[in-house]
Amino acid sequence: MENLQKQDFSKWYLQTIQQADLMDYSPVRGCMIFKPDGYELWEHIQKEFDKHFKAEGVRNAYFPMLIPESFFAKEKDHIEGFSPELPFVTEAAGEPLEEKLALRPTSETMIGHAFSNWINSYRDLPLEINQWANVFRWEKKTLPFLRTSEFLWQEGHTAHENEEDARTRTMRMLTIYKQVVEGLLAIPVYDGEKTPSERFAGAVSTYSIEAMMKDGKAVQAGTSHYMGTKFAEAFDIKYLNRDNEHVYAHTTSWGVSTRLIGATIMTHGDEQGLVLPPRIAPTQVVLIPVGPWKKNPEIVEKLEEIKATLISKGLRVTLDDTDNSPGFKFNEWELKGVPMRIECGPRDLENQQVMTKMRDAQEKVAVSFDTLVEFVVSQLDEMQVRLLESARRMRSGNEYTHINTLDELKAHIEEKRANQEVPGWVLIGWDGTEETEAKIKEETGFTTRNIPFCPPIEKATCLVSGKPAKYTVWIARAY
Amino acid sequence: MENLQKQDFSKWYLQTIQQADLMDYSPVRGCMIFKPDGYELWEHIQKEFDKHFKAEGVRNAYFPMLIPESFFAKEKDHIEGFSPELPFVTEAAGEPLEEKLALRPTSETMIGHAFSNWINSYRDLPLEINQWANVFRWEKKTLPFLRTSEFLWQEGHTAHENEEDARTRTMRMLTIYKQVVEGLLAIPVYDGEKTPSERFAGAVSTYSIEAMMKDGKAVQAGTSHYMGTKFAEAFDIKYLNRDNEHVYAHTTSWGVSTRLIGATIMTHGDEQGLVLPPRIAPTQVVLIPVGPWKKNPEIVEKLEEIKATLISKGLRVTLDDTDNSPGFKFNEWELKGVPMRIECGPRDLENQQVMTKMRDAQEKVAVSFDTLVEFVVSQLDEMQVRLLESARRMRSGNEYTHINTLDELKAHIEEKRANQEVPGWVLIGWDGTEETEAKIKEETGFTTRNIPFCPPIEKATCLVSGKPAKYTVWIARAY
Repeated sequence: MENLQKQDFSKWYLQTIQQADLMDYSPVRGCMIFKPDGYELWEHIQKEFDKHFKAEGVRNAYFPMLIPESFFAKEKDHIEGFSPELPFVTEAAGEPLEEKLALRPTSETMIGHAFSNWINSYRDLPLEINQWANVFRWEKKTLPFLRTSEFLWQEGHTAHENEEDARTRTMRMLTIYKQVVEGLLAIPVYDGEKTPSERFAGAVSTYSIEAMMKDGKAVQAGTSHYMGTKFAEAFDIKYLNRDNEHVYAHTTSWGVSTRLIGATIMTHGDEQGLVLPPRIAPTQVVLIPVGPWKKNPEIVEKLEEIKATLISKGLRVTLDDTDNSPGFKFNEWELKGVPMRIECGPRDLENQQVMTKMRDAQEKVAVSFDTLVEFVVSQLDEMQVRLLESARRMRSGNEYTHINTLDELKAHIEEKRANQEVPGWVLIGWDGTEETEAKIKEETGFTTRNIPFCPPIEKATCLVSGKPAKYTVWIARAY
Repeated sequence: MENLQKQDFSKWYLQTIQQADLMDYSPVRGCMIFKPDGYELWEHIQKEFDKHFKAEGVRNAYFPMLIPESFFAKEKDHIEGFSPELPFVTEAAGEPLEEKLALRPTSETMIGHAFSNWINSYRDLPLEINQWANVFRWEKKTLPFLRTSEFLWQEGHTAHENEEDARTRTMRMLTIYKQVVEGLLAIPVYDGEKTPSERFAGAVSTYSIEAMMKDGKAVQAGTSHYMGTKFAEAFDIKYLNRDNEHVYAHTTSWGVSTRLIGATIMTHGDEQGLVLPPRIAPTQVVLIPVGPWKKNPEIVEKLEEIKATLISKGLRVTLDDTDNSPGFKFNEWELKGVPMRIECGPRDLENQQVMTKMRDAQEKVAVSFDTLVEFVVSQLDEMQVRLLESARRMRSGNEYTHINTLDELKAHIEEKRANQEVPGWVLIGWDGTEETEAKIKEETGFTTRNIPFCPPIEKATCLVSGKPAKYTVWIARAY
């Protein structure tokens, strides 16, 4: 599969997730099966976010999945945004329902309805809730992990006394998203604000973290929304404030989903298949006996001992003592993206050492038994950092900040295509009009990703109109 | 609410779960909202079971929630059992679906379909998967936590080479269910086999753990099924065995659900409301300043210090320094079932002590600051054990093993009703016929719970037919 990743990224992606045994297709259109190695990635992601949410004082709850159709109609933008994608339950227990029930695409409406019952006074605020759940968006075009009809996510929903508190919560969650995605998944992201046309249906402000995949395309890796009082007005979330007046609460919502798994694969995978950041790898270290190891039972005994020691340090370790050849095993565990391999054969045993190889390195390193544990721990830590650095380098190699006109953008895309390179992300000046965004999209397929809080440079003039730029914006093709 | 628990158990239950702020109703029939204190009970239950499953080598995965209607038809008993309760998605994204999709009531069919693709050789066995998910059963009569149209559960599904391995897994999971329900939730259970009429739709053998509530009714708290090769035949789960023959795998499934929360409440709750086993209580210890504490800031400072120390020991602690009166707070935290209360006022501070009260005790106990941490830890441990013992006493007080004929059973029920007592559980001899079961149900409303592995005594003759008993069975009214 030499160069498949460069030549046909989509094919490489689908092959990689199958060979790594992360998923399977399902008989229902657009719905996928998360196999154990794929689901465990989500478990590690969940655990880390959940810890952060709880430290913020946000509590988990669970709301009904089925939402009456009439709920969607209560917020005009919300129904416009979601109704094209809703699946509906229309019959149950052999009888037609009086009102159609949507499978939730997100829970602002159901939770808004509940909040209106639960919030009476400023003493009830802030009310900060998170839900881990399955959600449904009946997508036309699907891609495993990145865009599926059913997916798993968390959705935080909070209500506050005023705009300032709500905006603080909105930004705080975006910061947590950035920290976890960079720290746990080793995916560098730009945090910034979405343009109005890319806002969540019903939001006043939408913020996102945006990640670049190895094919130069963008993945929106997490979003955080300030709703103003729009959902409060739609669902009558009013409270008695400190001045004894009934006023609307200010609400937020924020979410990350199983698409983070897809983003991780597309950020770190290489020609040999999956490459997993050590912190989320189901198996962090694989132990493989080599040479004529079956004649020498001490080898597997030693590996068992190493395994037990590493597990006692909290590491996730597998010993592969199946009958397959070492070469077969090396390949199989590389496809699975296991961060570290440890080999031991008769000569190694004699020398009281093992050979080690990191998934993202070329060379093997000999390590003596007595320093092995510290070595493994430090190497996994280093690989975690190295993957983030390497993703940052990949990203900066595909960022273009010198393009000032639509013609230059088209020429850039053409040139990259001709050289079989990726067009990457382009930083542009934007006059803030929808027409400009629409024209760029129509003529190049690039869409605005976000207005980064910290752009590499500030752009002076609008790419399309040539007028003074109001904003500096990342544009790219996106998943 | 003196004696409400005895006089009207249903009313007491609904009042208790509302006053403890565990749940709310939803606008969708039979679907409930798990509020944070209710959902956290589930999180503690999940965490404990998940740890056990992983220790068994069972791995988590996630399968699509929507199941094609045709899948159900593949196993005759399965469709008969579930089709009266299925909700169906019939349209999505504005268009009718080609095939109706059921919201899963359980996933044997979807997982059977996947297993048939994943299992080829005996080397692929055992295949042992668990899923944490929401499921749907459109029930006519619903009751929060115990019977809802949507609920949360885990469903384990395993495939094995032969009957022995599959039966071993079936029984092993039942043992784990018993251990966790007794150890974590302090609910004593009888483990045993279900009669054929009460079997899971499609199972060869169904085993259950059955718990007695304070109103003497039974809750089926967990089930484990041996499917034989029935689902393997329906979904073509065949493998090449060690003799190079293509044969059907033997499968199992097993599950516990959020109804365990309802069972916990109905087992331990008392006249004052909720009583939570310390191991699952969201707040294990509440600290309340008393007397003229506002004039003496040292009191809250001391309580803050105690709180920090207890939290550092891994305990879940709340300090209630709101403006409400101590009496109001005592009542509120009792309603919430918090296991331990610690009070500190000016005189306590002077004496370097606090007053403590356990939720299930009458008296307060003075404890000096310097022995407090050890005292709290040991008291919570003791309360956990005490609740289990107390539930065992309640249960034995409502078990009847001396009833030998249907007339005696009816007289027993009449007598209890006349005395406003609960009829409880009755251990009977059973000739093994469906007619007998049907007659008991029709004439008394009692149903067979299970054939306990360890009955208090063995019954000699059938309650109805008077013939020699084939089995000794618990019968009771059930949720």
